[in-house]
Amino acid sequence: MTNTDAPRKAKIRQILADTPQLLSRAADTSLVEQIVRSVESKIADRLLRTGARMPSIRQYAEQHQVSRFTVVDAYDRLVAKGFLESRRGSGFYVKEPAALITHHEQAPNEKWPPLMDVVWLVRNMFRQMPAQKSPGTGTLPTEWMDGDLISNALRGISRQNSSLLIGYGEAQGFLPLRQQLQLKLAELEIAVTPDQIVTTTGITHALNIVASHFVQPGEVIFVDDPSWFLMFGSFAAMGAKVIGIPRLADGPDITKLAELAALHKPKLYVLVSVLHNPTSTSMSAAKAFQILKLAEEHDFTIVEDDIYCDMHPGSAVQPATRLSTLDQLNRVIYLGGFSKTLSANLRVGFIATSRDMAQHLTDRKMLLTLTTSEIGERVVYKILSEGHYRKHTDRLRSKLAIGRDKTVRQLERVGIAVDMMTPAGMFLWVDTGCDTNVLAEKAMEQGFLLAPGSLFSPNQLPSSHMRINVAAMSDPGIWRFLENEVGNNN
Amino acid sequence: MTNTDAPRKAKIRQILADTPQLLSRAADTSLVEQIVRSVESKIADRLLRTGARMPSIRQYAEQHQVSRFTVVDAYDRLVAKGFLESRRGSGFYVKEPAALITHHEQAPNEKWPPLMDVVWLVRNMFRQMPAQKSPGTGTLPTEWMDGDLISNALRGISRQNSSLLIGYGEAQGFLPLRQQLQLKLAELEIAVTPDQIVTTTGITHALNIVASHFVQPGEVIFVDDPSWFLMFGSFAAMGAKVIGIPRLADGPDITKLAELAALHKPKLYVLVSVLHNPTSTSMSAAKAFQILKLAEEHDFTIVEDDIYCDMHPGSAVQPATRLSTLDQLNRVIYLGGFSKTLSANLRVGFIATSRDMAQHLTDRKMLLTLTTSEIGERVVYKILSEGHYRKHTDRLRSKLAIGRDKTVRQLERVGIAVDMMTPAGMFLWVDTGCDTNVLAEKAMEQGFLLAPGSLFSPNQLPSSHMRINVAAMSDPGIWRFLENEVGNNN
Repeated sequence: MTNTDAPRKAKIRQILADTPQLLSRAADTSLVEQIVRSVESKIADRLLRTGARMPSIRQYAEQHQVSRFTVVDAYDRLVAKGFLESRRGSGFYVKEPAALITHHEQAPNEKWPPLMDVVWLVRNMFRQMPAQKSPGTGTLPTEWMDGDLISNALRGISRQNSSLLIGYGEAQGFLPLRQQLQLKLAELEIAVTPDQIVTTTGITHALNIVASHFVQPGEVIFVDDPSWFLMFGSFAAMGAKVIGIPRLADGPDITKLAELAALHKPKLYVLVSVLHNPTSTSMSAAKAFQILKLAEEHDFTIVEDDIYCDMHPGSAVQPATRLSTLDQLNRVIYLGGFSKTLSANLRVGFIATSRDMAQHLTDRKMLLTLTTSEIGERVVYKILSEGHYRKHTDRLRSKLAIGRDKTVRQLERVGIAVDMMTPAGMFLWVDTGCDTNVLAEKAMEQGFLLAPGSLFSPNQLPSSHMRINVAAMSDPGIWRFLENEVGNNN
Repeated sequence: MTNTDAPRKAKIRQILADTPQLLSRAADTSLVEQIVRSVESKIADRLLRTGARMPSIRQYAEQHQVSRFTVVDAYDRLVAKGFLESRRGSGFYVKEPAALITHHEQAPNEKWPPLMDVVWLVRNMFRQMPAQKSPGTGTLPTEWMDGDLISNALRGISRQNSSLLIGYGEAQGFLPLRQQLQLKLAELEIAVTPDQIVTTTGITHALNIVASHFVQPGEVIFVDDPSWFLMFGSFAAMGAKVIGIPRLADGPDITKLAELAALHKPKLYVLVSVLHNPTSTSMSAAKAFQILKLAEEHDFTIVEDDIYCDMHPGSAVQPATRLSTLDQLNRVIYLGGFSKTLSANLRVGFIATSRDMAQHLTDRKMLLTLTTSEIGERVVYKILSEGHYRKHTDRLRSKLAIGRDKTVRQLERVGIAVDMMTPAGMFLWVDTGCDTNVLAEKAMEQGFLLAPGSLFSPNQLPSSHMRINVAAMSDPGIWRFLENEVGNNN
């Protein structure tokens, strides 16, 4: 960027000028931290692009009415974090982000599949961006959550005997939480005792524990196509072969599943029965039964990821059959968690399985991370056992229903088709009629994060589908963008 | 056990009769929970052995002056947890513990080494046993720790903006903690910026992240022999070949290292330079330099586990050279954590490495567990930044010095030789002159957990050595046991 690049420079200033309203002396975080976060999110949104020159320290300080020391400090941190670079005598520039992950560069080995390129979305998805800029995000907006529930629980824990949080804690997880989860599963008609439950650091940890127990390098794991992208990378990283089973409105394509199971002899099939990500469809009872028969016939284990469980509004609105309920955890391993409904930061998930398998998976958990922290588990226990969780999820479901209706109507208006329309859940799987990789790139230029369909498929091919988060569609700019870019195609 | 087995029955009653003093209505945990823990720890200690019949509910209730409902509830929980089984019409019995872990029983595959049988010790080590019964444990006694530090920090966090703990948090870890760690490493003369640091769920998680990035199944990882047992299982589980390098008083046997490096072309060498586990020896500067030269020559990466860092009393007492200080994180990856000095339950560890590698390892962390919880990281940040940590570790070091002197004198008195005597740290590596597997078994019968030498060697061969925790030698029963069983051999 040269000094004659005036319009672009003006744009950067204008983008950064959005910041003052965010800077607040009353806020919990320091001004420095606020500036760091603001610049970071603008870079993540690509509002500030690689190579752009930042305003000088003096300019920034004046524009935001903060001291120059504050700006120096913030820019220094941004350099330390790799977002900016300082060029001697010339100022600060937005830095080229580090190269995307590649598998085992140290030791290229043709035998193992490469880690799939899910890192771009992963990095962005898990950066803290404002929800209204992220129709592609997989979480609900922070303001839909109830931070006080967590603060209050933490305060309660801080008052308990102070030596409780010194030791490693129980390998299987905090017992009162496991007892509480027993009750929760009983409501889904899944009968377990606490010794059948193993807590984990979220579902990702649970998937790693289970897959590392069952699958050797070169062996096959089935996933739905489309499905949650991060696990493709996790499984590929352990040398497993990931194969997608086409997902239809009522569950997987059974003919295809039978065919591929005979061909590949998978060790595991990881699926979501209720409010599947990214389609929010749920499994029919008939399909659930057929899958269990195929699992028996081809001797594979099913991993049922039920992270969206508490967003389901009940069978009056949408039928829901869990494989774990039919099979009672003989051939099905159940995974649950609280990242979507309570807080992603607590990192509390769990595995429910047979008693023997729970022992094996506990040992495996120990080898991966030793125990899990009891703090998050005590927080979840308190919120569940004191009845707050139920009320909180009631509220979430009402809000989701409203957001969903509104989004569906607006999609109709701009002429975008919903594929596999379903009545509940936080996602809509829409067909834009154009390559959503290209669309996501364009959206990024305008500061919006979309989730292109290619990411949700283990084969990563370009797709005209994308995932929409019905809780993150409030910005009129998104609708203008979609109307301009997509409305014409359909 | 039959009704005529009166002496044994009396013994069980007597063992359980130790409990009343532990049951307290004022305690933070419920009576039910207290009974559960008491019985559990007696089973772990093998004071209650498989097949033993528990007192009837009536007997237990009378003996401990609690209601029968309380006992019913406690026994039920113990059944649910797999410690007891209920035989209809006959009462409650101590159950056979679940079989030890075996690798991939589902899919035996001769190519990969089996998980080593470290599970017996692992399970016991991480069960909550009173420290005075566990000379073999790897942690300091709870009462040496400062639970109030953690409670106060949690209270502080609960007062912060309640929406802070909703999102996933930063992938690399809580930034203020990473800034604090930058200062901590600077004191060790290791220059890093926060973007070179990745937080983890403890050192075990860190080892898994690093090893899964560098090592393919079938490839070789070097460890010290003896060294920390859990990692043998972690590495074996990912299909790596684990080979031990003999550890001498001033570091590894360099001749052997050179020979084995040429032969096996390892990808990683995981070592402890300062207060090595289990010998508490530290590396000489000359050896540190030689290792770095060999790493260069044979192109392997060094992982320096510095978990005992803050137990080191300074170079006046014992010289300490870290490879990371010499190499400045080019070929060395530094691991640190707070499980030994602050709380194992917080599960806070970290990796320090080059900037690029930090990005790769962050991606790898995301694939294994997504982000780490900020709660533990905020707790550690507060304790470090408010200066409490330094004072607390000062106190720990003073106590350790006293415990160590006392233990060394008593070992002399009972005639047990310390191998590689060193002036600091929490462990002594002693030579008993007899098979410590047998000795540990005998100790268990008396309710003491020892750590036999076989566990610390990747080849798991019987050994006359064992590891002693100088902070856990206060029970006179241990000394009587050692005098009787070992004193005669030497």
